[in-house]
Amino acid sequence: MTVLPFVKGHGTGNDFVLFSDPDGSIELDADRIADMADRHFGIGADGLIRAVRSANLPEGAEALREDPDAEWFMDYHNADGSPAEMCGNGIRVYVTFLIDQKLLELPVGETVKIGTRGGVHAVTRHSEAYTVDLGPFVVLDSEATVSARDLDVPRPGLPVGVGNPHVVVAVADDDELDGIDLAEAPKVQPEPPDGANVEFVVPGDPLVVGGVGRIRMRVHERGVGETLSCGTGVAASAIAVRHWAGENAPDRWTVEVPGGDLGVEIADGHVLLTGPAALTYRGTYEI
Amino acid sequence: MTVLPFVKGHGTGNDFVLFSDPDGSIELDADRIADMADRHFGIGADGLIRAVRSANLPEGAEALREDPDAEWFMDYHNADGSPAEMCGNGIRVYVTFLIDQKLLELPVGETVKIGTRGGVHAVTRHSEAYTVDLGPFVVLDSEATVSARDLDVPRPGLPVGVGNPHVVVAVADDDELDGIDLAEAPKVQPEPPDGANVEFVVPGDPLVVGGVGRIRMRVHERGVGETLSCGTGVAASAIAVRHWAGENAPDRWTVEVPGGDLGVEIADGHVLLTGPAALTYRGTYEI
Repeated sequence: MTVLPFVKGHGTGNDFVLFSDPDGSIELDADRIADMADRHFGIGADGLIRAVRSANLPEGAEALREDPDAEWFMDYHNADGSPAEMCGNGIRVYVTFLIDQKLLELPVGETVKIGTRGGVHAVTRHSEAYTVDLGPFVVLDSEATVSARDLDVPRPGLPVGVGNPHVVVAVADDDELDGIDLAEAPKVQPEPPDGANVEFVVPGDPLVVGGVGRIRMRVHERGVGETLSCGTGVAASAIAVRHWAGENAPDRWTVEVPGGDLGVEIADGHVLLTGPAALTYRGTYEI
Repeated sequence: MTVLPFVKGHGTGNDFVLFSDPDGSIELDADRIADMADRHFGIGADGLIRAVRSANLPEGAEALREDPDAEWFMDYHNADGSPAEMCGNGIRVYVTFLIDQKLLELPVGETVKIGTRGGVHAVTRHSEAYTVDLGPFVVLDSEATVSARDLDVPRPGLPVGVGNPHVVVAVADDDELDGIDLAEAPKVQPEPPDGANVEFVVPGDPLVVGGVGRIRMRVHERGVGETLSCGTGVAASAIAVRHWAGENAPDRWTVEVPGGDLGVEIADGHVLLTGPAALTYRGTYEI
């Protein structure tokens, strides 16, 4: 029996168990991770993040080839124990954790490169938030139709790729957004081969205030259910509404999700996500 | 800023944050408790339990008048911060916690009296479980009709009181039980003045094996939603099915809930609940 110290944290309500394993010596299998992530029988989290030096695991070696500055790797697993490429909220909490554990020094205004299974991502620290470069994105030239419980008729959806697949659906107003029942997964037609996260959005009225676009969003994450926030989903929502708004649309957006507010910026063909990160409490768990 | 050490535990998936405050010096207000119980922004739990000596709080003095042996009081609060009388799963975890913290010695086979806002309850330790005397119960001589989403027609329900109000509804089989959508609260007619927990049960087929009755159950707790387990709801379910089964019905029952199995026994007009209790992990939280 080993006692594993961990820290719990969240970014706009997307919450994580984080632990430090610089040498890459603590291997947790999928069942163990699922046990830890269980909200009643375990610690409870949307995902589990292991802090390991890139040099000390195979995927990390790949990250170092992409960028030799990517000293730290975010070894991310979903709550069901499956490994995941990237998490737009998790990476901010991860950097906060590295600083907390004194594994990283990062003055305000500075940027760190973080290795992930979805490539190396730059994270910049601000006084009370972090900006993550989520990389290039793509608006797909295809059509999708989305239906959901308590949404009266199927709606057109826009497929957007931000490392992972999304379908963004505009609804009429706040009441319609709040009325959708996301306890059941929305149905996308034609069905995406690997599934997709589905974002329902209400563009602001007015859409743009002070040069910044405004959106309200709810999200259903594939294989998870409704969540309080999804970083790449927030980015996809801004990309979709900007696409619909046409050529005069702004490059900066504020997206309100159930867990809080996030900022999105489009720059040089990349999408950048800005938001808070908080550490909630410390614990120990026997493995 | 004070660092509060806590332990997380659960009984058949009904989970709790427990902390030790023998002197009754740590007062947490409802907002703070709700923050701690939040599953994304806090620690996450169905309820919060403070271990305090009965002599050191007003409700504890009342418990001591009822039974001078009730040295320890279970100061229980729901996840929304409101105080609660009693929790049939929580009290088993509470006794485990008292033993863990060396605040109580309780050899296997022995019984301890615990003060609660719902009176003093006797808890007996077995090798891998605890039995709680939930006290007297009442089957109400009134009628209720219960409807729920994805249950085709409204069903008759039996009102049962086990310290708190329940309405128990029999459904046809496992498929029907699994098909009910409890994301929305079931509707009880006539509406109970203080609301009620609603239990949906499938009597076993055969009902009795080896002298023990068998039931499967799902529960919607008032003000909470569906939970993995509800101790008094498990007791109410056994009481209701025993009532329906008539005079040859057994006094011992096994109730399967989504979080595990619990035992119920009717003896001397009291209902006794037997089940496991586990401590999951240790933590510290800044208050």
